[in-house]
Amino acid sequence: MLGAIEAGGTKFVCAVGDKTGKIIERIQIPTTVPEETMPQVIDFFNGYQLEAIGVGFFGPIDVNMESPSYGSITSTPKTGWRDYPIVKTLAEEFGVPIGFNTDVNAAALGEVTHGAAKGLDSCLYITIGTGIGAGAIVQGNLLQGLSHPEMGHILVRRHPQDEYQGKCPYHGDCLEGLAAGPAIEDRWGAKGIDLVDKPEVWDMQGYYIAQALMQYVLILSPKKIILGGGVMHQKQLFPTIYKYLNEFLAGYVSLPELSDYIVSPGLGDHAGITGSLMLAKQALQENN
Amino acid sequence: MLGAIEAGGTKFVCAVGDKTGKIIERIQIPTTVPEETMPQVIDFFNGYQLEAIGVGFFGPIDVNMESPSYGSITSTPKTGWRDYPIVKTLAEEFGVPIGFNTDVNAAALGEVTHGAAKGLDSCLYITIGTGIGAGAIVQGNLLQGLSHPEMGHILVRRHPQDEYQGKCPYHGDCLEGLAAGPAIEDRWGAKGIDLVDKPEVWDMQGYYIAQALMQYVLILSPKKIILGGGVMHQKQLFPTIYKYLNEFLAGYVSLPELSDYIVSPGLGDHAGITGSLMLAKQALQENN
Repeated sequence: MLGAIEAGGTKFVCAVGDKTGKIIERIQIPTTVPEETMPQVIDFFNGYQLEAIGVGFFGPIDVNMESPSYGSITSTPKTGWRDYPIVKTLAEEFGVPIGFNTDVNAAALGEVTHGAAKGLDSCLYITIGTGIGAGAIVQGNLLQGLSHPEMGHILVRRHPQDEYQGKCPYHGDCLEGLAAGPAIEDRWGAKGIDLVDKPEVWDMQGYYIAQALMQYVLILSPKKIILGGGVMHQKQLFPTIYKYLNEFLAGYVSLPELSDYIVSPGLGDHAGITGSLMLAKQALQENN
Repeated sequence: MLGAIEAGGTKFVCAVGDKTGKIIERIQIPTTVPEETMPQVIDFFNGYQLEAIGVGFFGPIDVNMESPSYGSITSTPKTGWRDYPIVKTLAEEFGVPIGFNTDVNAAALGEVTHGAAKGLDSCLYITIGTGIGAGAIVQGNLLQGLSHPEMGHILVRRHPQDEYQGKCPYHGDCLEGLAAGPAIEDRWGAKGIDLVDKPEVWDMQGYYIAQALMQYVLILSPKKIILGGGVMHQKQLFPTIYKYLNEFLAGYVSLPELSDYIVSPGLGDHAGITGSLMLAKQALQENN
């Protein structure tokens, strides 16, 4: 039996499952502070005989195994979690191998093993919701270098009609500052879900997302692009994204048919927790 | 003995060397048309007993081994070379394994094995010259997905003082269209080498390069960044790049000291040919 945690800014999804990605039991726990959240996580897992646990955590986190702070949360705005050593805590509690990566890298792993990119050795998973983040599988491995990617904060050119100042506390009008859910609400005065009948909202949104995809395609050349997160529940975005991406790339690189290439998650909202289960599986294999 | 070709738009560098990266003999041949250039290449290599040949070719090229046109040049503006099957030609002529990748991926491989990124499993090599291109090593492998990266064509925000329309035939004012050598010459009316005393030239240049590095860092998180190519012979660019990159990132990700992190090629102008030799070594290993 394997354990999995998908740790987001508002809730922890905890699950137990098997090596095939099958989820046997799952619960949700609110993300408050570690002193409240973690005992509930530990309680849940105490009911099972686990061989390993996989954790997909909202970034930034320290994923460098040679670093003294490996397995900790780093500069999160959720201050209770800053520097929290989640890998150490779980390893001491359960004495099993712990897999650890970002929530979006976990979702990419879920999609490449059991979702829309199954059978490929490369994919990019992007979530557009309260923030924008992305994870990637490159030649079969989770993308990692000096650290994990932080693709949501790339700079984009402004839509000609956009005068909104941007909402990122670090960069103002980076991609996340212009195109995540809170930016939509702040710019238009209503949540995305209440703006469905306003084409100008989705035109602008598609323009920014397509621009980001252009950069990702030219830099990473993924074999499949998966767009998840709350904002992408607005399916009318897809044709606009295809239109702008074609316009921006101007035929320079040849891509598969865009409606096959840029898709919704095959696992729906379960990509992250399934991927966290696969992180547990990887951790178990690396320790055997 | 291994053979290596670094094929650029103006010249082919051909060399023979050994598995340690040592170059024993090298020549240059002008890049005209295949019917003229290739017989001279073949003549040179005929003087040696080769075990494998590595080719680093100016892109775009087909590096997908499952594709029917694998090993060919694709949409190059040098029309004589379009669709030219260089891997097939060399394999038929010499009957040895042929390694094949972009010139910039080869240079990244040269730098990670024998240059500024030696000992690391990750680096990004960028050339800024008659064009802009980049290659990367990710977790020990040459970066490849659907195809090789085409990082020189990413979109950048304009420098506030820049009214130049851009020179890229595909995208107009993409990074290459605004910051490669021909754009400098076109915008300022003189070659970069004759503009050394004009700080506004290098401020603008540093602004664009730093913006590109921000995108590369957030998407790939390389462990070392190497800036090569003719434009980067202007060493005064480095402090400007560091300044703008710090400004753009605004402390969001932590990087090593930038003067250690973003450097000139350790192999100088030999990164590409050394890397092509390493492509030959890889091809030999994969065939044994």
